[in-house]
Amino acid sequence: MDDDIRRRLRLLEDREQIRELQATYCFLVDDGRFDELVATCFTDDARCDFRDSKGLISPLVSTGHKEILAFFTGVVAVLLHDMCHTVHNERIAVEGDTASASCYFELTAKHPATGDCVVGAGRYEDRYRRVDGAWRFAERNARILHMAPLAEGWVKRPLLRALTGD
Amino acid sequence: MDDDIRRRLRLLEDREQIRELQATYCFLVDDGRFDELVATCFTDDARCDFRDSKGLISPLVSTGHKEILAFFTGVVAVLLHDMCHTVHNERIAVEGDTASASCYFELTAKHPATGDCVVGAGRYEDRYRRVDGAWRFAERNARILHMAPLAEGWVKRPLLRALTGD
Amino acid sequence: MDDDIRRRLRLLEDREQIRELQATYCFLVDDGRFDELVATCFTDDARCDFRDSKGLISPLVSTGHKEILAFFTGVVAVLLHDMCHTVHNERIAVEGDTASASCYFELTAKHPATGDCVVGAGRYEDRYRRVDGAWRFAERNARILHMAPLAEGWVKRPLLRALTGD
Repeated sequence: MDDDIRRRLRLLEDREQIRELQATYCFLVDDGRFDELVATCFTDDARCDFRDSKGLISPLVSTGHKEILAFFTGVVAVLLHDMCHTVHNERIAVEGDTASASCYFELTAKHPATGDCVVGAGRYEDRYRRVDGAWRFAERNARILHMAPLAEGWVKRPLLRALTGD
Repeated sequence: MDDDIRRRLRLLEDREQIRELQATYCFLVDDGRFDELVATCFTDDARCDFRDSKGLISPLVSTGHKEILAFFTGVVAVLLHDMCHTVHNERIAVEGDTASASCYFELTAKHPATGDCVVGAGRYEDRYRRVDGAWRFAERNARILHMAPLAEGWVKRPLLRALTGD
Repeated sequence: MDDDIRRRLRLLEDREQIRELQATYCFLVDDGRFDELVATCFTDDARCDFRDSKGLISPLVSTGHKEILAFFTGVVAVLLHDMCHTVHNERIAVEGDTASASCYFELTAKHPATGDCVVGAGRYEDRYRRVDGAWRFAERNARILHMAPLAEGWVKRPLLRALTGD
């Protein structure tokens, strides 16, 4: 009976810790603290996949700390300045020392090349693993729904075309 | 003493499950999975009331699975395409097998007739009932604060007038 | 062993109650229920600091119920009408009867002088204290990232300059 209580308590704690991890990710990305982000939030073998639905691949897929750091410093930080991004609608499923979640994200930012206000939104599909007692991203897949200058809004052009002018 | 622990644990689990239900609703509505939405998220006798503050009634009030499905397929899916909507600021009160909650929602969408970007926001006032161990909406009342083309923003016209041109 | 369970359960309940407090704050501010807000959400000696990064001080720093009430009725309610504001990305740390949290906020509102749609975002850095069994704000520090007419977006002018025309 005590075991049942402990199991349920642990599950609630896991869900809290995964939500904290999702929040911490936003703080560290928006503050440009990429070394800390990669070292504390991702497993050694983590994989990030941020392709948009039209599917430009490299360099939007990265595996391992070194490539993930290069993705954040070389792509995210270059395309989007003054980012403010938030996660919503978390759905979380924990199974022992692994977990999965899907949630929405929204962001505002400044496009450094044009000075435009950028709005974006999409969904994260995540996998997590407990490492040394702490939950980390093993996979973060972003399905970008839209990302474009505010003046264009969210109906016209997908991510890279809007930001790079392609 | 054990009973006290079990009661408090159950309450925390209920709150988690209600938040998951609120999130699931957004995923299923935005993905147009209305059959699944109605079958799994609403009690048989559920009631949806989405009147705006100016109060056009029919067809914005629906009762029971059949009417609720007709509301989503015949009104929501017609007025708003590519919807992306999120819930925030959840306040939840559980009492045994019933519960109530209020929260904010925000959405972006595309107006199919004009191609305009639409922004909307409001509050949900919900009642829930536990059915076969799972929480479901018994009532979802939307108080729409604004819903209009992005270019108009949120100060001018309320819902239907903005979207239908009335 | 039972003590360990009770301690962990209490921590989860504390986190829930602090999230409810953050949500309640949004409801009461947006509904203009400032007397209730101050009386139920803030400790007697609470301090609010809403300076923007450029640092105009008075009257954006208030201490104690009387000054905080004056801040909400004399500044917030004057600068921003029809406010709709939401909190996101909560990070919460509880230690006994005190706690701290950081989170993001976003808001939309109407600028009463010009009729403009206003968009704003920033972060709250909070300290809480448990008073008579209920969590309250002991400090709420807002770091405003942007707050400006929608047509200007979030890249041009900070808070007061945008809203007051300075």
